[in-house]
Amino acid sequence: MSSTTTTQTTGRARTWSVTEHLEDILGTVRALEPIELQLLDAQGCVLVEDITVSLSLPPFDNSSMDGYAVRTADVEGASEEFPAVLTVVGDAAAGQAEQYTVGAGEAVRIMTGAPLPPGAEAVVPVEWTDGGTGGGPAAGMNPHSAAPEGASGEVRVHRPAPARAHVRDKGSDVRPGDLALKAGTVLGPPQIALLAAIGRGTVRVHPRPRVVVISTGSELIQPDEVLAPGQIYDSNSFAMTAAARDAGAIAYRVGAVSDDAEELRSTIEDSLIRADLIITTGGVSVGAYDVVKEALAHVGDEDEPGSGVEFRTLAMQPGKPQGFGTIGSEHTPLLALPGNPVSSYVSFELFVRPAIRALAGLPDLHRPTVRAQLVLDKAVTSPAGRRQFLRARHNEGTATLVGGSGSHLIAALAHADALVVIPEDVTSVEPGAEVEVVLLG
Amino acid sequence: MSSTTTTQTTGRARTWSVTEHLEDILGTVRALEPIELQLLDAQGCVLVEDITVSLSLPPFDNSSMDGYAVRTADVEGASEEFPAVLTVVGDAAAGQAEQYTVGAGEAVRIMTGAPLPPGAEAVVPVEWTDGGTGGGPAAGMNPHSAAPEGASGEVRVHRPAPARAHVRDKGSDVRPGDLALKAGTVLGPPQIALLAAIGRGTVRVHPRPRVVVISTGSELIQPDEVLAPGQIYDSNSFAMTAAARDAGAIAYRVGAVSDDAEELRSTIEDSLIRADLIITTGGVSVGAYDVVKEALAHVGDEDEPGSGVEFRTLAMQPGKPQGFGTIGSEHTPLLALPGNPVSSYVSFELFVRPAIRALAGLPDLHRPTVRAQLVLDKAVTSPAGRRQFLRARHNEGTATLVGGSGSHLIAALAHADALVVIPEDVTSVEPGAEVEVVLLG
Repeated sequence: MSSTTTTQTTGRARTWSVTEHLEDILGTVRALEPIELQLLDAQGCVLVEDITVSLSLPPFDNSSMDGYAVRTADVEGASEEFPAVLTVVGDAAAGQAEQYTVGAGEAVRIMTGAPLPPGAEAVVPVEWTDGGTGGGPAAGMNPHSAAPEGASGEVRVHRPAPARAHVRDKGSDVRPGDLALKAGTVLGPPQIALLAAIGRGTVRVHPRPRVVVISTGSELIQPDEVLAPGQIYDSNSFAMTAAARDAGAIAYRVGAVSDDAEELRSTIEDSLIRADLIITTGGVSVGAYDVVKEALAHVGDEDEPGSGVEFRTLAMQPGKPQGFGTIGSEHTPLLALPGNPVSSYVSFELFVRPAIRALAGLPDLHRPTVRAQLVLDKAVTSPAGRRQFLRARHNEGTATLVGGSGSHLIAALAHADALVVIPEDVTSVEPGAEVEVVLLG
Repeated sequence: MSSTTTTQTTGRARTWSVTEHLEDILGTVRALEPIELQLLDAQGCVLVEDITVSLSLPPFDNSSMDGYAVRTADVEGASEEFPAVLTVVGDAAAGQAEQYTVGAGEAVRIMTGAPLPPGAEAVVPVEWTDGGTGGGPAAGMNPHSAAPEGASGEVRVHRPAPARAHVRDKGSDVRPGDLALKAGTVLGPPQIALLAAIGRGTVRVHPRPRVVVISTGSELIQPDEVLAPGQIYDSNSFAMTAAARDAGAIAYRVGAVSDDAEELRSTIEDSLIRADLIITTGGVSVGAYDVVKEALAHVGDEDEPGSGVEFRTLAMQPGKPQGFGTIGSEHTPLLALPGNPVSSYVSFELFVRPAIRALAGLPDLHRPTVRAQLVLDKAVTSPAGRRQFLRARHNEGTATLVGGSGSHLIAALAHADALVVIPEDVTSVEPGAEVEVVLLG
């Protein structure tokens, strides 16, 4: 944490802006130590090394067509009326061990991708020949297994071919020493294809962050159980787990822990072994049962420099109470989010998602934002000095609010695809005003 | 397949347009049979049922603040100078079994989310009181475990509160009978949050399609092995597996099978049990070792109506030879893609990705397309009668080609983020021309 974060967990602490809190988080969280992963396990990860090519691609001159490998002099002037008649000495198929040489007056029947045989200078596509049938132009070859005689006999070539026609040159794609991919590249399917093609079965990347999600609250029960009076269903642990995965993490849902500091403390300590980041929800406000605050004063090794979680009042709505810090000997970052489902979701988008992406070493930490015109029946108010985030639907340059501003309106959240940002110094927004919109994508 | 698909695997078959081939695929592929999945297993899936709410959210009137539940008459006219002094009869914490009643002159200390006690009409935030300390305005409460005396004694209230102040009404979010989510909704984190919140632990969705990826070619070896003459590394099975996952599938990489029809046939038959879609690469052209063509004449139960894979010539570049059909008793769709890495990748984007998304029941089958200005040094040519797809980088309304048009230029593909589409009737494109661009995202 930055040296300015000296406020404590109780008392009239200063209020943090959204920007300050985010800067503190991103100033603390570092990209995870690189590890060597199998190619497909590295999908979506960020490369930490420049990848230099050590072979040529293609590794050898090869045919780009199914046809016949020939000497150009032998097919000079060939036509359908006056074909060049060549002796087929064998097949060149991709991956075949035997190799034939093309002498004067000879041809090798060759398949796409097969090495150009010694002596051959060009390939004529099978459609430019009689395919060895003695008839008219061929449409293709018969399967070798059914008609092995196609690899011998005579072929009539109907058109000439210049040198290197239908030949892919060795090294025309990449050559030894070429830079295939730069450190910092995100490995999507085409990048994985290139790595496989140049023979790299493993790569060094920042691994996907492992995120442990713990919701807190004695009132929480699991979906499909029967609600007793005063109970509600735990939704935050599901929402945060799904959102963490969506941000690129491997997420572990611990689920709901009751408002007992000792139980929470031990759950958090047990989670450290598998966590690159811990998220808690609930228990961060000013109440007498706000157990996350209570528990985190004693987690892990607080003598380690940089350890400790700080609880803050943020100048935002929803999401005013927030906790952030690092715990344990590994200084594992922990974000303690408020318990209202909408508050925790907005907090995730603003703070946790960028933290996960920073741990992954990804270049784009933030959701895209656009300007849009706010569609409203009447003006909406916003508290002075707090940045408000309203749930909205974005469509072609406009944003329409869904649901109200209550932080428990989870039904409305499920129909939103954007957050409308009302700055701290704005207390009322008129219909048609231009606003900043975060696209939740 | 449509009734017009009567061409056969050999001979001078008609040429299919990209659009015709895609329409045939999408006319054949159906969304997978719905299954009931645990919430987090349903992430990214499409709901097949309307979800109606069977409870109220919140399920009971509850406090939106940490504070004191009071009768409004008792705090009328209260100020810091002339506080209302109330007897604290106990705590109302979320999830707590005991419930206290607020009588005249009494208050219950209440936590955010706790049920409003009988007798109480409003909540005053703790910051509007002395917090039971007898001092000035409180900043918060002390933890109950450390200071249980906060649940008794007296509290001084400094401000009045109207009826229902800081109370979230039962059912203010959703009520029984409300439609929570419509069939067809894609389940992202906020939708999963809502489902959990209303007590749904499982939902009926189209499952994620299981895609089996098989590359073919006797020349293929695995990355990290040592290349012998004539061999190349298998990249397609990696690329297609990664791309299938990227499209939302559960992908199984079988890897490379040699050019032996019997081996390929048995591999495909073994894969049917775990496949909603099979992708093969290579072996679809006119050569004598094009084993996919050979093998697929005999896979599965060809007496079943709708079975059979058809090999076609498409009016496109790259990607001219393509196979498509259904195999086995379940009519599992199979797409046989050409073997050149760039051809198979472009074919995946055009045909396989939409097929996977159709199997998943997703609403958006296609990549977004935009118009862009083509940045070029000199005009590029394009074959008449074929739709050409060129690899490009897209940036702010412009597209710049990367690499050449050779279908083996996999290095260039790894640096592209878009495909430039040159229509069938265009044979030359000038610098600065406006073109259609598929964003690979």
